[in-house]
Parts: sequence; C-alpha cells; structure tokens
Amino acid sequence: MSIEPEFRQDPVCGRWAIIAPERSHRPKTLEGAEPRHRREGERKPCPFCPGQEYDTPDEVLAYRPFDSSPNGPGWQLRVVPNKFPAVRPDLVTLSSTADSTADTTTDKNMFLASPGLGRAEVLIECPEHLPDPTHLSDSQFSAVFSAYRDRLIALADEVQLAYASVFKNVGAEAGASLGHTHSQIIATPIVPGIIESELAGSAAHFSRTNRCIFCDIAHREMTDRDRLIAQSENFLVLSAFAPRFEREFWLLPKRHVSRYEAISSAECLELARLMKRVLSSLDIIMDKPAYNWSLHTAPLRSTEMPHYHWHIEVMPRISRPAGLEWGFGCYIIAVSPEQSAREFREHLS
Amino acid sequence: MSIEPEFRQDPVCGRWAIIAPERSHRPKTLEGAEPRHRREGERKPCPFCPGQEYDTPDEVLAYRPFDSSPNGPGWQLRVVPNKFPAVRPDLVTLSSTADSTADTTTDKNMFLASPGLGRAEVLIECPEHLPDPTHLSDSQFSAVFSAYRDRLIALADEVQLAYASVFKNVGAEAGASLGHTHSQIIATPIVPGIIESELAGSAAHFSRTNRCIFCDIAHREMTDRDRLIAQSENFLVLSAFAPRFEREFWLLPKRHVSRYEAISSAECLELARLMKRVLSSLDIIMDKPAYNWSLHTAPLRSTEMPHYHWHIEVMPRISRPAGLEWGFGCYIIAVSPEQSAREFREHLS
Repeated sequence: MSIEPEFRQDPVCGRWAIIAPERSHRPKTLEGAEPRHRREGERKPCPFCPGQEYDTPDEVLAYRPFDSSPNGPGWQLRVVPNKFPAVRPDLVTLSSTADSTADTTTDKNMFLASPGLGRAEVLIECPEHLPDPTHLSDSQFSAVFSAYRDRLIALADEVQLAYASVFKNVGAEAGASLGHTHSQIIATPIVPGIIESELAGSAAHFSRTNRCIFCDIAHREMTDRDRLIAQSENFLVLSAFAPRFEREFWLLPKRHVSRYEAISSAECLELARLMKRVLSSLDIIMDKPAYNWSLHTAPLRSTEMPHYHWHIEVMPRISRPAGLEWGFGCYIIAVSPEQSAREFREHLS
Repeated sequence: MSIEPEFRQDPVCGRWAIIAPERSHRPKTLEGAEPRHRREGERKPCPFCPGQEYDTPDEVLAYRPFDSSPNGPGWQLRVVPNKFPAVRPDLVTLSSTADSTADTTTDKNMFLASPGLGRAEVLIECPEHLPDPTHLSDSQFSAVFSAYRDRLIALADEVQLAYASVFKNVGAEAGASLGHTHSQIIATPIVPGIIESELAGSAAHFSRTNRCIFCDIAHREMTDRDRLIAQSENFLVLSAFAPRFEREFWLLPKRHVSRYEAISSAECLELARLMKRVLSSLDIIMDKPAYNWSLHTAPLRSTEMPHYHWHIEVMPRISRPAGLEWGFGCYIIAVSPEQSAREFREHLS
C-alpha cells in the first residue's frame, strides 16, 4: 500500500474516512498527560514557539508587523501547513486522471476511494506557550476568529476544495498532541458528513416552514431561556438540546447568516469575549476539562443560503462515548442540558 | 426538571440522545484505571460475582441448573435489568397520553422529546471475575452469543420496543465502569441512527442492484483477501474499508441473513471460537486495548429483509477521535485497513 493519504467512503453508511499513515509520525507532548484534563508533559523546544519557525513549513498567513520577516519571530499569530498532514495539496498531479482534481475511482460501484487531496493547516494562536485558550488576551482571541475568516476566504480560491473544516482540540483526551494553543483547518474536496446532514436537515425544515431552523432555535431559546447560557449583542450561547457530550454548547449569531466569512472584525472581538466567558465558566464547573470545538459554516464559494446558519459547537470531553454511542449513534447524557445551562450561568463572570 | 430519562432528537441532524440523570450514580471500579488498556482498580465485592446476586435486580434470563434457585448462585450466565438504567420500562404509565407507548411530544415541530421508555439490561457473561473476554471458555463465549439471541427473541414480545441495541464495552477507555466481563442491551421504541442509516444505505444498494450490499462486500473481500482477517465455515472477519477507529473489524455471516435471531447454537459456538481468535490477535498487536463491539441486526419483529445483513462491529479504542471526527464526522486513520488485516493474520493462533 502507498503511504499517500486517501479518502474512503463506507459503502453502507456513506461515512468518510481519511487513511493517512503519515499522521502516526507526529510528535506528541500531551501523550502522557492525565487524559481528562489539561497538563503537559516535558518537551522542549515547542515547535510552535517563536524562534522555532524553522520547525514548521512556511507560513501561509501571519499577523505580524510589516517590518518583520516571514517565518521569523515577531508574529502575533501564524498559520502553517501541518507538518504531518492528513491530506496533501500535491496529490492533484499524482491523480491517474487529469480531468478531475477530486478524482474518485469507483470500485465495482461499492468501494469509493480517492486521493487524499486537500490542505491541512495549523493555526498557532499566540507566540506565548499558553496551553489554555482562556489565557489569551481579548485581542489575541479575536485574532483567532479573524484568522478563521481569512483562511476560509483564501481557501475558497482553490476550486478543487469544497469545504474547510475548522476545529480546535484542547487537551490530550480531546486529541491534541501539542500543548501550545492552536486550531486546525482541514480543507477537502468532500463536504464532511455532519455538514451534509445539517445542510439536508435545515433544507428540509426550510421547505416545510420557509424559515431557517437555527433562527427558529435562537428565537425559541431566547424566549424560553431554559437552555440559554449567555448572550451578547449579536451572539447567543446555548446548551445543546440533544447533545452528544455532557455540557455541549453552541455559539451562533442572532441574525441569519450562513457564511462565517461574513463576520466583521468587531464581531470577532465580541465573539471572542463571549467565548472566553463561557469557557472560563466551563473550566470552573468541570476543573479545566479537555474539549473540542468546530466551526460549522456553509461550503466554500457558496452564496448566502436562506436555510443554513453558521455556528460553533463546543464539546467538553467529559463523558466517554461507549458501545451505544459508537455502535448505534445514540448518546446517553447524565446531566440534563437545562441543568448544564443553569450551572454555566451561575459561574459566568 | 424531572430525573426520569428522556429521548431527545436533535432538530437539525436527527441524532438521538437519551437524557438519563440516574446514570451518574452508577458505581465505577475502572475509573482510575489506565485508560487505553484494561486494568481494574480495587473494589470488593463485585456486584456481578456469585453470592452478590442481591446487589442486582432480579434476573430476566439465566443459564443455570434446573435445581438452582433464581437470583442465587450456581448460574453460568445471567441477564439482569441495569440497576442504573438509561431507559426504564415503567415510563409507559407515566406518559401523558394513553394512546401511544412511545409518546412523542412535538414542541413547535422542532424539539422532539419523549419519555425514556425501554429496557436496559446487563448480561453477566460468566460467574468468574474475569475482566478479559478471551479468558472465557469456548462454551462460555458461545453462551454469550446464545443469550443475545434469546434476549432479542424475548424483547420482541414487547410491542412498544422497536430495536434492541446489544453491545459490549471492554476497558475504561471504552466506557466500561465494571471489570467483570459483561455485555449490555438497551431496547428502545426508536431505531437508532446508525441502524437507520445502514438500513437506508443497504436498501438503496438493493434497489440499484437487487443484491445485498453486505453479501457483495463478503464476496469481494473473500476474492481480494486484502482486508480478510479470518474466516470459518459460516463467518468472515474483515478489516473495515472506511473505519472510524484504527484496526476496526467486522464479523458477518457468509450466507445472507438479516436477523441475528436466526443464529443456531452450533453457529454461536463457531462464532465464539472465531471471535476469540481475532480478539487474542488484537490483544497481541495492541497490548490489550480497550474496545467496544456492537451487534447490528434488523429491528425487532421484522421479517427477513433481502437488503440487510446482521454483523458485529468491533472498535478498538486506540486512536482518539478529535475535532474533525466529532465536529464533522470525518475519521482520520493512521493505520491502513490492509496493513491492519496483515497484522491480524500474522498473530492469529
């Protein structure tokens, strides 16, 4: 077998996997850490710290003074290709057919596989070796949300890419391998399954009601307040109604907008302040748990969609999915979303 | 909020959650164990050991000598209601409407919730305090597969139940809370999402080809052998083509059959011997990892389906799903399924 990455689709369910043997070589400093919480093992120097820029591929975006040099110190935020990528941009030319960059080979109409084309990027959120996103300053945290926007806009120029999955892993239990706070972007020729499912579900709701389901949820939750955790002028934070993890929460804009790329710099700062407040509350309630967040937005180059609505889902990795969850897709949650919202509200600063 | 369990469906994706606050009270002896592997903390006595029958609800099935007393020692295998159930049978009468036992209240057509009606059972696989299923004798392991069948047949008598999810968690990382080897059954008025997805995907394949997709997969994998791990007269073990976990494998019957209930006692023994061989190989390759398995079979009371095919999926909990997996439903796998199959074959006894 080649060690080049490959997309594969389950022939029964349609679930996607990326077979990426190179990933097994990535360094891990969090491996030995206590799994549920966030402590780092010993490894110096950190490849994401200033002065170690030679240890990452050349930056594709940096917020840095005009008089500083690319790939040298002085930056406030850097986005670099992942050194151990799950997908690779150079596979276009390796494809056996020239007419499609997202070449899909069907195997007796059953086993679908295609080259693991795409871009895997790491967004290094600050120069300081901070493992905890709530320790970012408001402007640093805001820059993270601006950089998400800037990369989504840039990646849309690559027509072979259909979707950019933006996410963050905090803590070893959440899959992080390095402690220095960072996000990841994996842009692919496929639209991932959960986004497909959200697009289909929200389109079905729109065809029934002529309304965006996320707008309906926002309206309902602002009225009922049972699952309302926090809000700012333009954003809401909600305890998920049918979560996969205990204390799962979602952030979404109050006004309808399907494309995250439309966010303004002022909104990035507002979102950052709101997210920091809620994450700090989570850290108090659960003693700094590991968590993931993911930015759910419309596919690259889509025009504004009346049925879809961007949002961020945050999943604390407290509960352990087991046989019922992995085998059947049904999630047992021992803390009710309403109880969770109450506790979040009690500990908000 | 009530502490009664409740089913909830995500309004966008249709994913199901069971909100079950009582689950937080269950005892855990594996909690402090090293997470990836299988070691047990100190807790005596084990509620699943002989002599402790008073510590579990009354058995609903037991393989025991005719002259032994129910809920006393002497048994070879016991199935008891879960003392800390995710779903409960007594919620039928608590439903606010009398006309449906699976009463679903729609809330402005968006937030679907219904009482957490169902049966949660624990299948205690042997009297000995064995944490490792490969240490079961062939006849003990075979009895586990017979008991799955017997409970599926019994649960089908309860017309309010649509599906029985049968699964097993081995090791703390896989969600097990007690070390004594056991399986679980959670029978519900809903058909779980992954089964719905498999039924839909296999029905679509059947409508295109007039063939069962699992039969097609079995035929293809027996011919190619790249992902064939092991086989016996009637069963195959395959490395999953597009897995969610590294070294995920599936067991399925070679002949077409949608309902697990049709398995014979001789086939249970054959399946047990095959499963033990493959699990022992996994234990060598990965140093006794935590894992889950789940039995995917047709819904309760269904007649034989031409498009569906029962099988067991085994998911070693080696790799850690992170933001891409949980946020987007796309799985990064660092060991190719073909490499995995080779290693399984090398270590088969």
